Amino acid sequence: MSHYLKFVDLNYKPQKDDLICLFYFEPAPGMSTKEAIGRIAAESSNGTWSETQLGTLPHIMKIRARAFKIKGNYVHVAYPIDLFELGSIPQLLSSVAGNIFGMKAMKNLRLCDITFPKKYVQSFKGPQFGIEGIRKFMNIKDRPLTATVPKPKVGMTTEEHAKVGYEAWVGGVDLLKDDENLTDQNFNKFDARVKLCAKMRDKAEKETGEKKDYFVNVTAETNEMLRRAKLAHDYSFKYVMADIVTIGFSGLQTLRNFTEDTKQAIHAHRAMHATFTRNPKHGLSMLFLAKLARLVGVDNLHIGTVIGKLVGKKDEVLMLEHEMEHQLEPDFKTKENVLCQNWYNLKPVLATSSGGLHPGLIPQIIKMLGKDICVQLGGGIHGHPNGTKIGAKALRQAIEATIKKIPLKEYAKYHKELKAALDKWGAERPI
Amino acid sequence: MSHYLKFVDLNYKPQKDDLICLFYFEPAPGMSTKEAIGRIAAESSNGTWSETQLGTLPHIMKIRARAFKIKGNYVHVAYPIDLFELGSIPQLLSSVAGNIFGMKAMKNLRLCDITFPKKYVQSFKGPQFGIEGIRKFMNIKDRPLTATVPKPKVGMTTEEHAKVGYEAWVGGVDLLKDDENLTDQNFNKFDARVKLCAKMRDKAEKETGEKKDYFVNVTAETNEMLRRAKLAHDYSFKYVMADIVTIGFSGLQTLRNFTEDTKQAIHAHRAMHATFTRNPKHGLSMLFLAKLARLVGVDNLHIGTVIGKLVGKKDEVLMLEHEMEHQLEPDFKTKENVLCQNWYNLKPVLATSSGGLHPGLIPQIIKMLGKDICVQLGGGIHGHPNGTKIGAKALRQAIEATIKKIPLKEYAKYHKELKAALDKWGAERPI
Repeated sequence: MSHYLKFVDLNYKPQKDDLICLFYFEPAPGMSTKEAIGRIAAESSNGTWSETQLGTLPHIMKIRARAFKIKGNYVHVAYPIDLFELGSIPQLLSSVAGNIFGMKAMKNLRLCDITFPKKYVQSFKGPQFGIEGIRKFMNIKDRPLTATVPKPKVGMTTEEHAKVGYEAWVGGVDLLKDDENLTDQNFNKFDARVKLCAKMRDKAEKETGEKKDYFVNVTAETNEMLRRAKLAHDYSFKYVMADIVTIGFSGLQTLRNFTEDTKQAIHAHRAMHATFTRNPKHGLSMLFLAKLARLVGVDNLHIGTVIGKLVGKKDEVLMLEHEMEHQLEPDFKTKENVLCQNWYNLKPVLATSSGGLHPGLIPQIIKMLGKDICVQLGGGIHGHPNGTKIGAKALRQAIEATIKKIPLKEYAKYHKELKAALDKWGAERPI
Repeated sequence: MSHYLKFVDLNYKPQKDDLICLFYFEPAPGMSTKEAIGRIAAESSNGTWSETQLGTLPHIMKIRARAFKIKGNYVHVAYPIDLFELGSIPQLLSSVAGNIFGMKAMKNLRLCDITFPKKYVQSFKGPQFGIEGIRKFMNIKDRPLTATVPKPKVGMTTEEHAKVGYEAWVGGVDLLKDDENLTDQNFNKFDARVKLCAKMRDKAEKETGEKKDYFVNVTAETNEMLRRAKLAHDYSFKYVMADIVTIGFSGLQTLRNFTEDTKQAIHAHRAMHATFTRNPKHGLSMLFLAKLARLVGVDNLHIGTVIGKLVGKKDEVLMLEHEMEHQLEPDFKTKENVLCQNWYNLKPVLATSSGGLHPGLIPQIIKMLGKDICVQLGGGIHGHPNGTKIGAKALRQAIEATIKKIPLKEYAKYHKELKAALDKWGAERPI
């Protein structure tokens, strides 16, 4: 008998403190299902290819992972909490998202979902503000938050960037946002950008009477990232933005700890996620990544749009929105490739919908995702025939119409900014 | 004409300071090749789906990326260096490894290789020691370095772990190594492990007259990671180990800066890489990841074995070894999916071969990869019928035999430790 089969126990009842992973797997040719799932559980916990003298001792066997449920190509694996260091995402990833994805024994392997026990959840900070906290400091009660990235993505001078920001803010956008690849390039240095945008924000706040803020991208080596977050704080920005995948989880956890003191919210961009989330048969799911982001404690997270330029099917986007913003959702339990998570006292994450959006798509987005979202438009504001300020106005009109349950085309009759947007991009295409 | 075609210029001659990326791509159905490669270049530099007023200004157009060479499903894209923040891997990833992988316009997309200009290379530290520096402080001249992970991977007490380490060291292993998922769990706390292993190391050094060291896994949130590295330094360990993918590049760059002061080498484990490197049609190549690791400045990097339990074809492993350990290799230029890199003054990275190795495979590993490697055996030492110490002895004998050009089976006649290993696992299987 293969010693990997010790890591398969179909009678095992998961313990209260176990972490549970749900994997999709396709064994390599010639590999039996049981052998394959035994290897998944072994390599991600404490097995090895050649059995050793110590490997069979009771205190080691006790904390091994067990594949305990198989259904088609899906397997549930239970991991005793003792296998993990509390409060460390890198250690979790090195276990359940590590070597197993490179095993010759697998043709394909995908970590679809994970569920954490209370003790593990509570070893993380979670979001500092949650949706309620964000609405409070932004002073926005009953509508989606709006954000915009100056486009083109990179290349504008600091002055051009701040001017676009100012126009977007006075046009009605709440939050300026850097693009994921704008950090501290020569054409637009970080420090100068923060200073100038703070000045423009003050002006825009005075003119509109609304609170304005900025997802300023602090993505960098950790210490430099903290310095940039501090600078944003010194200029009274309540937000920082982080490219959470390209920063990585060591740096992100450090940033989260830091913002506890500066009382800043974290806007999380997920650039690079599709290198490992896109293949439905291999890699990690976006849901898994999103759960890690909530544990660490980002306040906003990009979850996709369904209808824009980036991939992300409707079911996935809805599921992400639900898991990020709510406490528990037993409805999803019926689906075989999703687990359930009780988030205990961890605050929710505000879902951000972004990527190829324009005002004409707003009713569908709100219908799908509700009002507790941040809608982020780049080209869909700055590409407006009359420029950024008018484009921002059109977006706010689209939101007003939707909240008031008035069809956009109807509302556009009396709102020329929205009309111009609809004329250019259309409205309410079916999803 | 689609505005994306502005990002295609088949007459473009890459400039001295451009970064060049080589992508494999498969357009989504209905998408032309030119449109597809235009979108790759646009979304990874400064294009957007809806053209904006500023997007066509000369200073912005000047620094756009250009797809300049197509060959089948491969495209070369040139990126002016001004698009990038020098010395920041996260910013690079958010550009060339970011949103483009999630574009609906692509069915599949893979970043196969990248080449950096001198100015970009020199904005990074690179490895602190290089192969020569490592050989010097380890006092090992003309043979591969040897390392071992106590197995089972996790679950041993600190005492059991240190005992295995001691036995491996006195048996002939140079470097003890933590497994990628062992950090600071309750059964084996980090601080206690460092202290006890330092004591065992002193004992082993005294008994063998050889230098012994330890790849102690400091993977954690950044500040905690630095604290752990400092502790290892306080106990005179010259190495730290980092799970570079699960830590992420912000934290890794911080660790590299830190070790400049503590004069510690970094052993890089690549757990999780296969979530995005394994699919040959999508994601990032291991070669790309390895180049980033050399820029940042790890001293050792796992590159695979060809013959062990983990995937990694012979060509890929050889290419990795070559790019990490040498300055420039024009031979590879003839291959269409590889670029060339001049590393200027950056030191080389010592390749580590690990995963399912045993003494019988040593001749093939050395034949393939040369003597400038670190061979790392876990189960292939501790799974020896006579235990760890004898297993370590068998490994050194296999290396001695290979260096002396004596077939293992011949050498085993006079070396019973090696013989027992060969009897269990076989020898010199064809690759």
